[in-house]
Amino acid sequence: MLIVKKFGGTSVANKERIFHVAKRCIKEYRKGNDVVVVLSAMGKYTDELIAMAEDINERPSKREMDMLFTIGEQMSVALMGMAMHKLGVPAVSLNAFQVAMHTTSVYGNARLKRIDTTRIRRELESRKIVIVTGFQGINKYNDYTTLGRGGSDTTAVALAAALHADACEIYTDVDGIYTADPRIVPNARKLKEITYDEMLDLATLGAGVLHNRSVEMAKKYGVPLVVRSSLNDAEGTVVKEEVTVERMLISGVALDKHAVRISVLGVKDKPGIAFKVFDCLAKKNINVDVILQSIGRAGSKDISFTVDENDMEEAIEVLNQNQTRLTFKEIQAESNIAKLSIVGAGMMSNPGVAAKMFESLYNENINISMISTSEIRVTVIINQKDGERAMNAVHDAFGLAD
Amino acid sequence: MLIVKKFGGTSVANKERIFHVAKRCIKEYRKGNDVVVVLSAMGKYTDELIAMAEDINERPSKREMDMLFTIGEQMSVALMGMAMHKLGVPAVSLNAFQVAMHTTSVYGNARLKRIDTTRIRRELESRKIVIVTGFQGINKYNDYTTLGRGGSDTTAVALAAALHADACEIYTDVDGIYTADPRIVPNARKLKEITYDEMLDLATLGAGVLHNRSVEMAKKYGVPLVVRSSLNDAEGTVVKEEVTVERMLISGVALDKHAVRISVLGVKDKPGIAFKVFDCLAKKNINVDVILQSIGRAGSKDISFTVDENDMEEAIEVLNQNQTRLTFKEIQAESNIAKLSIVGAGMMSNPGVAAKMFESLYNENINISMISTSEIRVTVIINQKDGERAMNAVHDAFGLAD
Repeated sequence: MLIVKKFGGTSVANKERIFHVAKRCIKEYRKGNDVVVVLSAMGKYTDELIAMAEDINERPSKREMDMLFTIGEQMSVALMGMAMHKLGVPAVSLNAFQVAMHTTSVYGNARLKRIDTTRIRRELESRKIVIVTGFQGINKYNDYTTLGRGGSDTTAVALAAALHADACEIYTDVDGIYTADPRIVPNARKLKEITYDEMLDLATLGAGVLHNRSVEMAKKYGVPLVVRSSLNDAEGTVVKEEVTVERMLISGVALDKHAVRISVLGVKDKPGIAFKVFDCLAKKNINVDVILQSIGRAGSKDISFTVDENDMEEAIEVLNQNQTRLTFKEIQAESNIAKLSIVGAGMMSNPGVAAKMFESLYNENINISMISTSEIRVTVIINQKDGERAMNAVHDAFGLAD
Repeated sequence: MLIVKKFGGTSVANKERIFHVAKRCIKEYRKGNDVVVVLSAMGKYTDELIAMAEDINERPSKREMDMLFTIGEQMSVALMGMAMHKLGVPAVSLNAFQVAMHTTSVYGNARLKRIDTTRIRRELESRKIVIVTGFQGINKYNDYTTLGRGGSDTTAVALAAALHADACEIYTDVDGIYTADPRIVPNARKLKEITYDEMLDLATLGAGVLHNRSVEMAKKYGVPLVVRSSLNDAEGTVVKEEVTVERMLISGVALDKHAVRISVLGVKDKPGIAFKVFDCLAKKNINVDVILQSIGRAGSKDISFTVDENDMEEAIEVLNQNQTRLTFKEIQAESNIAKLSIVGAGMMSNPGVAAKMFESLYNENINISMISTSEIRVTVIINQKDGERAMNAVHDAFGLAD
C-alpha cells in the first residue's frame, strides 16, 4: 500500500508532537507500506513570518512573501527527517523544487498543475519515508508559490492522485466530519462516510475541516480521503464518491456567521443588469452566494446577495465605481446575518427536505429572510442572534443527534 | 559597472541593519551600476537552527542539516527584497535552486562547481537589484548543500567570477585587513592593498577576516576583492594579484593560539616512516602545519608537528591505531603553544627577514621551539603565554605601526 499522510501545523508544533507524528508514520511504514508525509509549517510559524515581513514592509510583494513563507514547511520537513532518523528509520525530506511541484504563476494563491513523481518514487523504492513540504510549489519562472488557505491539504491530495496512492489521510485536531460543529451542537454525531459533493458544500459553507480546493481535486481524481485526529486512533471520516453506509436524509448542518448581505436597490428593470452586477464582482474574484431578486415594480427592482465579510468593502467599492452602468440608486449592507445550511446527497430523492427545515425554524419562531437551494443543499439567511438556536433545532429535526 | 556585495550575518541581524544594507546597495544602484547582493543568515540564526536540530537528534544527518540551514539565507534575502521594495527600488531574491548554484555532493562542506548566470543576468537587465543566498548550493542529486565555514564569501567571489563583475566587496565588522589583530596590537595599521598569496597565508594562519577558500577562488579567477566595513564608509583593503602601493617588507603578523603540537617519539630511523605518519593524517583530512624532525640517533628519531586543536583527538587516535606500522614508542601532545607568523610578498627578495624576526624575539627573551618557512612567510612556535608580547615585538621590529 502507498499511503499519503498530511499533518497540519499544530501536529508538528513542537519536539514532542514531531516525534508523535514520526512514530505514527513509522508504524505504518513497518507494516511494509510506502509512506509519503506532507507537512505544514510548525504551529504559528507562518504568523511569525507574516509579522517579520510586515515589520519591514506593510505591503510586502506576494513574490517575496512566498519566498519567505516557504521556509516554514522546509523547517518542518527537515526536523521530521531528523526525528525519523533518530528513531532508526530511513527518511528524506523534499521541498517543492526537489519534488518539482509545478503550479500556476499567481503568488500567494497558485494552483497545482503537475507533480513530477520521479524523485519521490525513487526514494520510496529505496524504502525511505518521504517527507514533502505542503502548501508550496514552483511556477514557470522557477519561483516559489504558495497555494493559499488550506494549501497543504491540496498538496496531499494532489500527491495521492499523482502517485495513485491507496489512501490519503488528512490528520487534523478533530476526529472527523460531524453532522454539525460540536462546539455549537453538543449532540452532533461523527459521520463514518460522506460524499465529495456533500463535503464540498460543507467546506464552502464554513465547516472548515477541509479546504474545498482539496476536496474538488479528490473528487476529480477519485482519491479516497480520510479525515482523522492526529491525537488519537479514532477511525475518522471517509470522503468518497458514494457512501456505502445507510444513508441519512441529510449529512450535516453548517452555520456561517461571516457572511454579509449586500442589497443593490432601485436597479432598472431591464435584461442584463443582474448579469452586469455579478460580472463586476466576479472580475474581482468576489464569491457571491445566496441571491434574491425582487420582482420588478414601477420599472425598477432590488438585487440582494451574500458575500464573505472580508470581501464586503471591495464589493461595495466596485459596485459604486460602476453605479451609472449598473443603474442602481443605493447600496445597503447588513452584517448582522447568519447562513444556515443543510447538506445531504439524500435530499435529491426526497422533495420534503426543505419544507422540513422551514417547519423546524417556524416552530422556533425564527424568521427566514432569504433562501437558496441546490441539488444537495438548502441554505437560509436568518438573524445572526438566532444562529446557534436554529442550528440545534434543524439538527434535532433531522434526527442527526448521537 | 557590475558590483557584487556580500554582507555577513551581523550586517542583517535586525530590521535597522537590513535597511542600512538596503540603502547602501541602493546608493550604488542609483549611480547606474548593476548590483548583486549576497547575504548570510541573520545574526545568530544558524546557531538557533543547530540548537533546534540537536534538540531533535544529537547527530542530525548532514543532508537534513543542510535542508534546515538553507532556510536561514532564504529568510535574509526575502526580507531584504521587501526592504528594498519599501524604499521604492525593484529587487528580487533568489536561492540556490533559482540561481542554479551547482556544487559537489558533500553535504555540509560542498565546493562550488558551476553557477548558471542566466536568471541573474535577466533580472539585472530589467534593472533589478538581485539578492542571492550565500553559503548554499545544490548538488547533482538536486539536494541542498552548504559550503562550510565562510561559505558566503565564497559564494560572492564565485558569483563575481561567473558574472565577470568589476568588483567584489566583502562587508564585515572590521575596516579591512590590518598588519596585526588590533585587539592584540593596538597600533596595528590598516593595509590599502595586499596580494592574494599574502591574504591566503594570513587567512590560513587565523587572521579570520576572509575564508581562505574564497581567497583561493579570487586568485584563481583574478577577482579583485575589497574587504570593508558594513558600519562606515572607510576605504577598506583591496586584495589582488600585485600590490601597487609602496611595498612593505612584510604585510602582517598573525597569531594562532588554537594550534597543538603533537610529537611522535622513538620512530625507527628508516626511509618512508615520516611519509606514513603524514599519510595517515591526510587520509582523515587533518591539516598538518609546522613540522620538525629530529636527527636520527641510535636508530630512532622524533617527529613533531602542529595541528588545529579541534583535530588533536582524532590525530592521536589514528596514529595509535597504526602504532606498529609507524614504529613509534610514544605520543606526546602539547597545547600550551602559540603559532606566530609574519607574512609578506616582499620577503622573497629580502633574505634577512627571518633573522630580523628571530632577533626581535631574542631581545624579548622569547624562546622559539619550532620554525617553518615558506616563500612569503615565517612561522615560529612559542610558548602560549608569550604570544601577545611576541606579536607586538615583531610588529614593532618591522615598523608596521601606524
